[in-house]
Amino acid sequence: MVRLHTDRLHGSVGAPVLGSISFLNEVMGRYPGAISFAPGAPHPDTLPEVDVQRFTDRFLRHVMARGTSPARARQLLFEYGPSGGLINDIVAEALHRDHGIDAPPECYVITVGAQEAMLLVLRALFRSPDDVLAVANPCFVGITGAARLLDLDVVGIDETADGLDVDRLERACREARAAGRTLRALYVAPDYSNPGGNRMTLDCRRRLLALAAREDLLILEDNAYGFTAAAGAELPPLKALDTERRVIHIGTFAKTAFPGARVGFVVADQSVTGTGDDRTLADVLATLKSMVTVNTSPLSQAVIGGLLLEHGGSLEALSRAKSELYQRNLRLLLDALDRHLRDPTPAGVHWNRPDGGFFVRVHLPVPADTELLEVAAAEYGVLWTPMRQFYLDGAGDTQLRLSCSYLDPDEIEEGVRRLAAFLTKETGH
Amino acid sequence: MVRLHTDRLHGSVGAPVLGSISFLNEVMGRYPGAISFAPGAPHPDTLPEVDVQRFTDRFLRHVMARGTSPARARQLLFEYGPSGGLINDIVAEALHRDHGIDAPPECYVITVGAQEAMLLVLRALFRSPDDVLAVANPCFVGITGAARLLDLDVVGIDETADGLDVDRLERACREARAAGRTLRALYVAPDYSNPGGNRMTLDCRRRLLALAAREDLLILEDNAYGFTAAAGAELPPLKALDTERRVIHIGTFAKTAFPGARVGFVVADQSVTGTGDDRTLADVLATLKSMVTVNTSPLSQAVIGGLLLEHGGSLEALSRAKSELYQRNLRLLLDALDRHLRDPTPAGVHWNRPDGGFFVRVHLPVPADTELLEVAAAEYGVLWTPMRQFYLDGAGDTQLRLSCSYLDPDEIEEGVRRLAAFLTKETGH
Repeated sequence: MVRLHTDRLHGSVGAPVLGSISFLNEVMGRYPGAISFAPGAPHPDTLPEVDVQRFTDRFLRHVMARGTSPARARQLLFEYGPSGGLINDIVAEALHRDHGIDAPPECYVITVGAQEAMLLVLRALFRSPDDVLAVANPCFVGITGAARLLDLDVVGIDETADGLDVDRLERACREARAAGRTLRALYVAPDYSNPGGNRMTLDCRRRLLALAAREDLLILEDNAYGFTAAAGAELPPLKALDTERRVIHIGTFAKTAFPGARVGFVVADQSVTGTGDDRTLADVLATLKSMVTVNTSPLSQAVIGGLLLEHGGSLEALSRAKSELYQRNLRLLLDALDRHLRDPTPAGVHWNRPDGGFFVRVHLPVPADTELLEVAAAEYGVLWTPMRQFYLDGAGDTQLRLSCSYLDPDEIEEGVRRLAAFLTKETGH
Repeated sequence: MVRLHTDRLHGSVGAPVLGSISFLNEVMGRYPGAISFAPGAPHPDTLPEVDVQRFTDRFLRHVMARGTSPARARQLLFEYGPSGGLINDIVAEALHRDHGIDAPPECYVITVGAQEAMLLVLRALFRSPDDVLAVANPCFVGITGAARLLDLDVVGIDETADGLDVDRLERACREARAAGRTLRALYVAPDYSNPGGNRMTLDCRRRLLALAAREDLLILEDNAYGFTAAAGAELPPLKALDTERRVIHIGTFAKTAFPGARVGFVVADQSVTGTGDDRTLADVLATLKSMVTVNTSPLSQAVIGGLLLEHGGSLEALSRAKSELYQRNLRLLLDALDRHLRDPTPAGVHWNRPDGGFFVRVHLPVPADTELLEVAAAEYGVLWTPMRQFYLDGAGDTQLRLSCSYLDPDEIEEGVRRLAAFLTKETGH
């Protein structure tokens, strides 16, 4: 009987970054009664009463209004479709209206979630083993995992209170050059990153873009959480400030609509030369996509397209109620931490106070490792995510991440009560 | 303004194998009046009157019958889901019943079409630059394209009338070993391959499995077209004959159900050692998938699961009418070729006579290149696919592929009439 040894499989198999999610699922499975601050998944209340028929019908009316026959329109849902996508016009219009991003539909690729967009962009941009990817540190495991799949070298650039250590990024560019290498691109989520929770200031955004221009750096912007900003407090995405087409912008409908559609997108309006006619980077990504997933399910795209159209084509309208729910949950989480963990705060325990996103980071005086997680789960009935897996440089050992997205108000309250008992009793020296 | 040069992008960007599909689409777009034998897409008549609501409801009843609450069942459609899949039990039951493949649901991963399955398997199995992939030659561009994305070395093994040149494969194993390399796996579509159209005999299947055992070779079996065999004439897939778990079996619902769902699957029941507890290869693939597409759209999976259940859980029942349509179309195509291209047959023109699948190969006395394709399109109103792109070794220059899958009977007849005029007038010396 064939037995395959990990030593003979690709290096990503068994890499910690890829195992972390299944470990958490496994722990959650063993403690079904625990309150879990681990999942970053959307709250069940935000899952629309999705009427698939209604939304696909809405999309079909849109397509027919542009001259497609009814029979042909219906076929669109069930056939293969263009690798670049079917709903590019609707999404491009929404990003123009809501985010001030000005790129035509043909510069969009509709992807199987943001994750496929990350993989495609990394694959297109990284040619040589001397190309290096910089990522904000701590960092979403989806990008470091995709980089691991492609054997890319990654360097971490610390997040700071105002966003990112741009000076450190500049040094990293110089260091790479001195070593005969190229810092090719930076991955960053300027709006309430997972797991850092920071938001990049407008000034920092401008400094980052200026550095990118000086160093000929591309920026891969992930905007999964921008919609969670308080109403009226939104900042422009890097892509809206990008006069040089240095920013590749990635978004997802997993949180603004629903995850089960698996629909995301990438805006890649860079021009690509050297193979006959000029192409856009989006066109290159669509070609690569034909060898990853061929195309994003037209049925899923139609549901998302119809949902957007039902909200007047506005992302803001689509996500308003969800944004309010997460704002409320985050406030409840921070309030509960204040009530249960002040007077006294256990020595060495402190946390950040993001004003958007799903996540709060708590610092402990002891390692927040899997052993401590077992104690929290078994003895206190509360779960969280160790931060270690999000760091590239061995930092984060004593931090944990709390997500407020999946829980109800009473669960947040009771969960923090348990967490406070756990932190008070288990983190003393 | 940023301009990216292909020389600084990944080597797959601009690789001919990736450009071929968009080239054909572009030609078809320019000659909308031409009859195209190019698309291997399912016939529009086979697109079910898909009642998404009905099929998802059918799936939900199945899930609830196994103890899931109605509210939770509905959430399944719209939330994230397990990377391994939601409908594994339904698919595993169907493959057991219809193909004699005996693997439990946890050895399946439900993928975004067969294409993602290919990418995942290649990624997992190929570790070192000294690992070589063998593929049947000529070969489906999806596998060579995925290999190109991952920078894998590929060697072609000729298809033969009885399936594959197994002796040549044995020599390739020895040659790799002599060069300090390893022939790690063979990709093959034993049933009416795209584009070769051959079907591997039962004897050849057994010889291939015996060789794989001797050489410690894994076999990646693609079964996209097995369902097109005439009723009662099916042969067992390699996986059903696989007593050693050497075969990784890939399938798709693109042709047996509909392409727009983007649902395929892989059976990977190999055991993997070396990272703590033993895992299955399916579990490894699911973990890698979390960094490619996270999970396959639960909505799409539910539609496919419901469709299968509505057909009594049988792939054969699901695909029977489709199989009959393609059998008819193939017969009409071969009949029309006989009528229009005998008495006389242009010198040097001949073709194969597959008894299943979508494709017929025609040999010409002159190069069947893009220039000749333009002549066929512009002057004769007929399109086909140059075979060159399917070969790894520069062969196939004088062959073209005809697909019968997408056309109606009258289009096949008129298309072959045009093709005959084109071949008679344009391929003389």
